[in-house]
Amino acid sequence: MAERFGSYQNEIYLQGYGGTKPAFSTDATRLEESAAQVLEPEPFFYVAGAAGSGATARANRAAFDRWKIVPRMLTDATERDLSTTVLGTPMPAPVLLAPVGVQSIVHPEAEAATARAAAGLGLPTVLSTASSTSIEDVARACGDGARWFQLYWPNDPEVCASILGRAQRAGYSVLVVTLDTWTLAWRPADLDRAYLPFLHGLGMAVPFTDPVFRSRLDKAPEDDTPSAVLRWISMVTGTDRDWTALPFLREHWDGPIVLKGIQHVDDARRAADAGMDGIAVSNHGGRQVDGAVASLEVLPEIAAAVGDRIEVLFDSGIRTGADVLKALALGARAVLLGRPYVYGLAHSGEEGVRHVLRSLLADFDLTMGLSGYRKVAELTPAALRRS
Amino acid sequence: MAERFGSYQNEIYLQGYGGTKPAFSTDATRLEESAAQVLEPEPFFYVAGAAGSGATARANRAAFDRWKIVPRMLTDATERDLSTTVLGTPMPAPVLLAPVGVQSIVHPEAEAATARAAAGLGLPTVLSTASSTSIEDVARACGDGARWFQLYWPNDPEVCASILGRAQRAGYSVLVVTLDTWTLAWRPADLDRAYLPFLHGLGMAVPFTDPVFRSRLDKAPEDDTPSAVLRWISMVTGTDRDWTALPFLREHWDGPIVLKGIQHVDDARRAADAGMDGIAVSNHGGRQVDGAVASLEVLPEIAAAVGDRIEVLFDSGIRTGADVLKALALGARAVLLGRPYVYGLAHSGEEGVRHVLRSLLADFDLTMGLSGYRKVAELTPAALRRS
Amino acid sequence: MAERFGSYQNEIYLQGYGGTKPAFSTDATRLEESAAQVLEPEPFFYVAGAAGSGATARANRAAFDRWKIVPRMLTDATERDLSTTVLGTPMPAPVLLAPVGVQSIVHPEAEAATARAAAGLGLPTVLSTASSTSIEDVARACGDGARWFQLYWPNDPEVCASILGRAQRAGYSVLVVTLDTWTLAWRPADLDRAYLPFLHGLGMAVPFTDPVFRSRLDKAPEDDTPSAVLRWISMVTGTDRDWTALPFLREHWDGPIVLKGIQHVDDARRAADAGMDGIAVSNHGGRQVDGAVASLEVLPEIAAAVGDRIEVLFDSGIRTGADVLKALALGARAVLLGRPYVYGLAHSGEEGVRHVLRSLLADFDLTMGLSGYRKVAELTPAALRRS
Amino acid sequence: MAERFGSYQNEIYLQGYGGTKPAFSTDATRLEESAAQVLEPEPFFYVAGAAGSGATARANRAAFDRWKIVPRMLTDATERDLSTTVLGTPMPAPVLLAPVGVQSIVHPEAEAATARAAAGLGLPTVLSTASSTSIEDVARACGDGARWFQLYWPNDPEVCASILGRAQRAGYSVLVVTLDTWTLAWRPADLDRAYLPFLHGLGMAVPFTDPVFRSRLDKAPEDDTPSAVLRWISMVTGTDRDWTALPFLREHWDGPIVLKGIQHVDDARRAADAGMDGIAVSNHGGRQVDGAVASLEVLPEIAAAVGDRIEVLFDSGIRTGADVLKALALGARAVLLGRPYVYGLAHSGEEGVRHVLRSLLADFDLTMGLSGYRKVAELTPAALRRS
Repeated sequence: MAERFGSYQNEIYLQGYGGTKPAFSTDATRLEESAAQVLEPEPFFYVAGAAGSGATARANRAAFDRWKIVPRMLTDATERDLSTTVLGTPMPAPVLLAPVGVQSIVHPEAEAATARAAAGLGLPTVLSTASSTSIEDVARACGDGARWFQLYWPNDPEVCASILGRAQRAGYSVLVVTLDTWTLAWRPADLDRAYLPFLHGLGMAVPFTDPVFRSRLDKAPEDDTPSAVLRWISMVTGTDRDWTALPFLREHWDGPIVLKGIQHVDDARRAADAGMDGIAVSNHGGRQVDGAVASLEVLPEIAAAVGDRIEVLFDSGIRTGADVLKALALGARAVLLGRPYVYGLAHSGEEGVRHVLRSLLADFDLTMGLSGYRKVAELTPAALRRS
Repeated sequence: MAERFGSYQNEIYLQGYGGTKPAFSTDATRLEESAAQVLEPEPFFYVAGAAGSGATARANRAAFDRWKIVPRMLTDATERDLSTTVLGTPMPAPVLLAPVGVQSIVHPEAEAATARAAAGLGLPTVLSTASSTSIEDVARACGDGARWFQLYWPNDPEVCASILGRAQRAGYSVLVVTLDTWTLAWRPADLDRAYLPFLHGLGMAVPFTDPVFRSRLDKAPEDDTPSAVLRWISMVTGTDRDWTALPFLREHWDGPIVLKGIQHVDDARRAADAGMDGIAVSNHGGRQVDGAVASLEVLPEIAAAVGDRIEVLFDSGIRTGADVLKALALGARAVLLGRPYVYGLAHSGEEGVRHVLRSLLADFDLTMGLSGYRKVAELTPAALRRS
Repeated sequence: MAERFGSYQNEIYLQGYGGTKPAFSTDATRLEESAAQVLEPEPFFYVAGAAGSGATARANRAAFDRWKIVPRMLTDATERDLSTTVLGTPMPAPVLLAPVGVQSIVHPEAEAATARAAAGLGLPTVLSTASSTSIEDVARACGDGARWFQLYWPNDPEVCASILGRAQRAGYSVLVVTLDTWTLAWRPADLDRAYLPFLHGLGMAVPFTDPVFRSRLDKAPEDDTPSAVLRWISMVTGTDRDWTALPFLREHWDGPIVLKGIQHVDDARRAADAGMDGIAVSNHGGRQVDGAVASLEVLPEIAAAVGDRIEVLFDSGIRTGADVLKALALGARAVLLGRPYVYGLAHSGEEGVRHVLRSLLADFDLTMGLSGYRKVAELTPAALRRS
Repeated sequence: MAERFGSYQNEIYLQGYGGTKPAFSTDATRLEESAAQVLEPEPFFYVAGAAGSGATARANRAAFDRWKIVPRMLTDATERDLSTTVLGTPMPAPVLLAPVGVQSIVHPEAEAATARAAAGLGLPTVLSTASSTSIEDVARACGDGARWFQLYWPNDPEVCASILGRAQRAGYSVLVVTLDTWTLAWRPADLDRAYLPFLHGLGMAVPFTDPVFRSRLDKAPEDDTPSAVLRWISMVTGTDRDWTALPFLREHWDGPIVLKGIQHVDDARRAADAGMDGIAVSNHGGRQVDGAVASLEVLPEIAAAVGDRIEVLFDSGIRTGADVLKALALGARAVLLGRPYVYGLAHSGEEGVRHVLRSLLADFDLTMGLSGYRKVAELTPAALRRS
């Protein structure tokens, strides 16, 4: 049974105010600092870095600052119920763990530790195709916990179908298709350090354990890792996808499908027209297009345009409880949390992820209550003021 | 008789320009620095800290910067009279000492020193329910000085009534009900240091000296402090209040009542409709909802909506004389000063509080005169320009 | 004959590009730094400091940044003539030396050095009533150079008349009446250092050499400086002036009168209605009202309202040639330069003032030419763009 | 044959992600830092410096930040063709090397190294009149590569005609006439160091190798460099040009002519009316008029006004691939890259220039693809959002 955090009785809050210091900071804006202290520069910058000059990553944060919460008084919000259901997945709070690949570079237990922490709190994990742990192993780590699967879409249909089939059999219920990363962006932090973990065979657990992918190779990945890596990279980069390719996914995935990476209202409408079940408004945390618009900037108009037809998730820049409240008030059904939990993983594995998630949930819960809201359904743009 | 400061003949001004250095800075924006030098990190950050990422505390200050004073010339403002009357309390300037709890963590004389300094200058003190000094002792320290009482509203009606009765008997004339703090917010500065003074029995003078509260305990607070503390905390957190609960206060308080923590114009209207006498537009100095709107941002529309029905006070972000002028011009009858006087108390007790108050009054007085105003009643939005 | 700078053939420009390093920086934004290196903290902060939190001083600079020059091409601006005439005073460029008192605290030659440097370049000096050098000595230092006289208006009519008479006899042609400083503001930089040079008898040359003022004293200033100082301060602070007092000045001054310190369009209109000849839009460089509007913010509407009736000068924040161009394009006939030349004086006396003035003139001249303008009369708001 | 970069298969990208560290940073915003480490202060600041307080240089960068890219998804942009043709010059991407004079101060191979790097990638070089290498030598270094010629317009018609004739014979196809630098601006970074390379005979290769210019001298430049330098400077500064002078250029240049330095829409219209073939919207990288409007601010209206009649180039502030995309979306046909390649030249000569160009091209190419564009012709203002 997942820990109850649907009130301010969260453990870190009670411990902190009760006299027990937390393992690391409860200030979400200082987690990057904590991670920098425990990681080597290469993996640290791989996680913390962004595309180009970092303009988009900065814009993501600045966009939150332009919206302000207007708290309401005497609403009797002592008891909150933050639970929601997103694309059929019930969750105790509208927060999912964003797909983040190759977590083994920050902690040996990698995605399994993340999955255990998330499951313990009842939050869904979205497993990345670039996971360093296999689909099945992460499913086991989740136990009864909800899991979604994120797809980097290989251009070999049979490999794709095989991976999707495994995910479904392993209990992943929703498919999240990342559209914005069909090739790696210009990331100076990594280029300057000549660091790309995939080329060392890291983050390859999904294809390397896939029988159809393995059948495409002359030698097993264990025997010739470089060739296997390059084969996989060639499958998932530069794939010539357009909107006509979506029926293939519908055919091979028996459940809700979310398109992740939408930044334009016309693309959101097109996703709805194409019968998709949801979208994630996201710029990949500023990791792909330097100078791209802040995701929060475009959320309101996208939510207004398609929010009644499909479920709109939000990703990119979430750090604090106030951020969650703002994204929801502007039309998101739920948010995806990315780098912060990876910083927790880096610091102390499963326990670190739990610390970060609990902190965010307590912060969000308190922010909801103190702003006068008992349920996420009560949040509308009227909760905010643009300044 | 209160020191005369209704002109620029303020002591610190005369001493400073006369060649006597002040004990610490007269620059209101540097008082935090002074306090950081004399306090341990725990109490310092308890006072200086804010909710979450500190966004609201920063927004409070930034909001003042967007309004500019347009000084007028040749208005013959040599002689000023800054006095006013707020909810029946005459005061030589429209400044009150905001309720700040547990002042013993910064100075042993705590609220009594504060009260003496305020009374000496004729300014009303608003005593916090979380005071480290009892209602009666602070009243004695005030002497003839005006005092108001701030309520953290216990959910035990008899305890509440007992406390209110004591306050009235001790000469507190106005009741300030804080609405925005029915539970402690997410404050990383304190959580990271595992510091909450109340759990050590500090800031408990009001309930611990209350006979009805004591009657609720199995053991006297002196014998079992932790249990008494938890009992009190359970009374004042998460109390299920809404607008229908206000008549209880009216019944048990024979005098003006102010609702503190209003940030939305609809809540302000509701307070007026409910027969309240005043409101304090406040976000608790950014200590409760991270990402909340700056209080000054919402002051103009709230004052315009209800200023003719109830008295509108302002709290959150006041540091300089210009800030006081701006808040008044935007519709406040008076302002509450918070952290700055606590920094003064931390530095040198009663004398430090006096230094901070005198500095603010001299700064405000000079700003009034040099801007062309002789009386606070002359201030209107026309005194300002938004930029 | 004044040095010719009505073209880019300015000496510092030619020397610098010709291989001779200047005595100190030609970057107007770094002069404060140069002065900080040669002055004791007390005089440095007396000059560099501002009222309160420094908000107005910062706002003055920020206001310039919001206006941008739109250079025009192929206008044949090789030969420029920057000369103008302001209130009957011809000058080779629309720049005057703002009245700055008590210059002896930064250099022993004080206002005389300043006057020599200004006269050498043909620029008018505006002598401060708070000068450390007498009216007559500064007049001698000016030689043929134009000089104006700034008045801190004593409330003893005969003393006032005596001072004005001396100024006229000494060849000062325009009277600049400072309205915004009838009492010293709240200046923490000075209060914290308990530094007010006047109380040490500095900056008293004008009254101490005045026979009528001396007749008011029991003892000569040489014998009892403190009493003489206090007498003078009591004459010039808190004087109960309003608009009805202006005829006195007109009666005792046979020449143009400028009101300095105007920030509101209604006060500008009133000055024109009162028959004044000019105004200086100014907030005293941010030294009086903390939080006051940036002078450049209000210049356009003031110039539009009264620019056809009286001459509008600008003061507060001028540092670079672009600043001069912007102020002129927004309606000023000329600008007053303040702190920068005092920094030059602090660094190396007359030569330092000359360096700063030459640098500003060369910068302004080049900015004019490279923007496509040959004469200041060509400047209109169309030269700029607000961003 | 020029290296193919019309896809993400750029060498630095492949090497970096493949495990080979680049010689210096791939972060375009850190190149200045790299150059500062290898250059003496004088040449470094000559390149990095700007006019006056640097306000324009900062404004140029800030202007890019106000426009955001809105990436589109599923557009099948795997294969891009970034090639374009500007004024008859085909180029693999819409990027030219801006004219930068006196490159010998940062590297002994100077403009020849730059030309070789540009030619190797197929990008046109715009040779500066202030080159430290002769017109003919740079042409040889270009080989088959496209080259344009930038003119600082001498006021001796025969010298001008001689230089233009040489440029045409040496294969320079387009003439770029710089309008904004008929005299050197006020550049404190250089003035403070008394550094102007031209006075040492540097950057004089074009006139010193010109027979007509040499015929104007009493002694050959080799025998009396100072006199030759001054003669040349007097020819190119303060030249009394206006719009009526343009037919001379048309008469002596058989090919497209571009006016560089346009910042006002009326000047752009006039250029079109005068029969010019193109303009470069530019403020010379903030090196001429301190406080001038950011070039990107005026690009949209200029492109809208004349983009259908003449070709509009953009210069000033380009650093990243996103910058290129933004300028093109706002109406530019191509952009000029300035300081960044000079920083590369400073670091490691031809190889350094190649590194910088390849990085920019890869960054631009990836930004195009990931934003959903295959061809530069697809870019319109709809690709952006102002924030």
